[in-house]
Amino acid sequence: RNASTKAQSSLTIGLIPADGIGKEVIPAARQVLEALPSDLMPAKIQFEDLDAGFELFQKTGTALPEETIQALKGHCDGALFGAVSSPSHKVAGYSSPIVGLRKKLDLYANVRPVLSAAGAKTASGKTRPIDMLIIRENTECLYIKDEELLTDKDGHKYAVAKRKITEFASKRAGQMAFTMALQRDAMRREVTLGERIWKHKPKVTIVHKSNVLSITDGLWRETVREVYESNSEFVKSVDIEEQLVDSMVYRMFREPEAFDVIVAPNMYGDIISDGAAALVGSLGLVPSANVGENFAVGEPVHGSAPDIAGKNIANPIAAIRSAAMLLENKGYNAAASAVYRAADKVLASGKYLTPDLGGNAKTTEVTEAVCREL
Amino acid sequence: RNASTKAQSSLTIGLIPADGIGKEVIPAARQVLEALPSDLMPAKIQFEDLDAGFELFQKTGTALPEETIQALKGHCDGALFGAVSSPSHKVAGYSSPIVGLRKKLDLYANVRPVLSAAGAKTASGKTRPIDMLIIRENTECLYIKDEELLTDKDGHKYAVAKRKITEFASKRAGQMAFTMALQRDAMRREVTLGERIWKHKPKVTIVHKSNVLSITDGLWRETVREVYESNSEFVKSVDIEEQLVDSMVYRMFREPEAFDVIVAPNMYGDIISDGAAALVGSLGLVPSANVGENFAVGEPVHGSAPDIAGKNIANPIAAIRSAAMLLENKGYNAAASAVYRAADKVLASGKYLTPDLGGNAKTTEVTEAVCREL
Ligand SMILES: CC(C)[C@H](C(=O)O)[C@@H](O)C(=O)O
Ligand SMILES: CC(C)[C@H](C(=O)O)[C@@H](O)C(=O)O
Repeated sequence: RNASTKAQSSLTIGLIPADGIGKEVIPAARQVLEALPSDLMPAKIQFEDLDAGFELFQKTGTALPEETIQALKGHCDGALFGAVSSPSHKVAGYSSPIVGLRKKLDLYANVRPVLSAAGAKTASGKTRPIDMLIIRENTECLYIKDEELLTDKDGHKYAVAKRKITEFASKRAGQMAFTMALQRDAMRREVTLGERIWKHKPKVTIVHKSNVLSITDGLWRETVREVYESNSEFVKSVDIEEQLVDSMVYRMFREPEAFDVIVAPNMYGDIISDGAAALVGSLGLVPSANVGENFAVGEPVHGSAPDIAGKNIANPIAAIRSAAMLLENKGYNAAASAVYRAADKVLASGKYLTPDLGGNAKTTEVTEAVCREL
Repeated sequence: RNASTKAQSSLTIGLIPADGIGKEVIPAARQVLEALPSDLMPAKIQFEDLDAGFELFQKTGTALPEETIQALKGHCDGALFGAVSSPSHKVAGYSSPIVGLRKKLDLYANVRPVLSAAGAKTASGKTRPIDMLIIRENTECLYIKDEELLTDKDGHKYAVAKRKITEFASKRAGQMAFTMALQRDAMRREVTLGERIWKHKPKVTIVHKSNVLSITDGLWRETVREVYESNSEFVKSVDIEEQLVDSMVYRMFREPEAFDVIVAPNMYGDIISDGAAALVGSLGLVPSANVGENFAVGEPVHGSAPDIAGKNIANPIAAIRSAAMLLENKGYNAAASAVYRAADKVLASGKYLTPDLGGNAKTTEVTEAVCREL
């Protein structure tokens, strides 16, 4: 059931719009998947609507129902997740359903490609070519949510959270990063040189802050380096470098073209991928896939954007690209490519751009335009 | 001995160049301080050379000697710190001296003004006006360095770090942020409206990630809000908003002009300030002051830059501006303004720009140019 298994003849995809604009962009992604002609997409796709989110929590007291988990584990082949709203105050019993989903399905890597495409300006105003792939460890770090509120002897409040880094999870994330670096390189060789953005030897940048967190981030960087050093193909064909997370954000903005694959612990990966999204014009363009051994959940990097929810102006491209990542993960490469290309064409034409890209197209107009380009 | 005490007739400043380009930019800052005419700087400045750094650790086994601490506590009125190199591997017994210094002198806030000045292009290529002040909590969060390497029952390694947030430290950081927001507003009113960058009501942006860290970041945000709500002047004269750290990095790059004062826990503050530096052209421009109740240590935001160390091409402006921040903190406002203005003039003339700003001036040439403008 992963990228390397043979494509199946039928595919069940769970749809979890969750909150805010998730309810608009997930239907958009579904519409695009349904519009795929059968020569591109041999398998029939079945959809299953599933519940989760903060709004659901407010209604029912549960943010991630057990039925959703069971459906995903039981008979879904993959899923698409929209976005969750964050309560503005601490709400007893509430815990982010996307964080829960990643953990419960052991989706250990969050894969976030950030590409400068036609129609999207980079932050520098110039068309600086950007083609990075961020691999974010997805199960631990500060996201284990092991926190405590305490009182010191003088009656003052303090709180402690634990940040956990395991050799096991660091190894998996590292393995994924080097493998993807080689895969991307192979894919680039298939297209003409002129279209290649990254023209160098594949490179993996290991992000950490081991000058302060010498033990946790020390374990992270040593483990990722070991994955590299113990595989002669990696050593031969991939370059590595390390970057402290603070200077990473600095360098990413000064010379984004200097990065190929980036691998980072959970929290740094979260911050870096939003930063990278700013470089390519809009969070509304950046997809991700939460990937495990046997399952993947596509998820746009953007949030639930309550301020624009329900107005039919959310950018559906990130969700549509997330659907393409899911197809790719399931081995439907032709279908995935068709979706990517259709989205690129719509952006390049400049005719259907949502307000985040300076246009005034509706969510539904962009979605229909993508369907026409398939 | 703080900003509110009367200026003294003599001032002792400890100089801790530490590693790499710290050894070039701290002498540059000293040269500028020495060049201040006595009508601007009524007090005589005495300098005291103090040791610290990774290079020192390699030689002596100590990164932050007790003598340095004692000299600072005993007879210095303030200090300037250069930069520290980070070992590329975990080195037993080594711990960052700047982190140690902040803790030992209880320098509880790291104040980082980020300004777009003439001569420095913003990342957008345009002259987007940027005038933010980042207040970074400086004593806790993941910087308490409470970490452990462990082995699970299957013999696999894992590591746990503690992230501590106290009501006490959050309160101090919040208090500083709102106070500074009002002070900046008062200062802006003194200059002509045309020169004011921030034209709105003072605003404090509280950064956190309480959608994941509901207890630690929950305590942080609630405490900072309480500082605000319990002071009617703050409520009347300052706006507040909250921003999750990931979207903060995104927004900072999309609309940097939307921020006035930003207050953040230690690690987020570290990452955000490097990001902000990228917006104004170079880390080599951004100063900071580590501020406590009775002491301040000026510190350029940049690192030790081993790749360019010893070449006389490091940008001394960040260190020179950090010296100005120290003068301000000690109550020598005329002297501080003169240093700021001299640095601005040199940048604006465009004649003496170091390579990080696209020029080919030497560190010493920039420094001499600043001295001439005093
Ligand atoms: C909603 C939030 C819990 C989530 C995260 O921090 O992982 C989001 O920011 C993301 O990047 O998917
Ligand atoms: C050198 C390092 C420990 C330090 C920090 O993380 O605080 C630096 O990045 C800074 O911002 O002053």
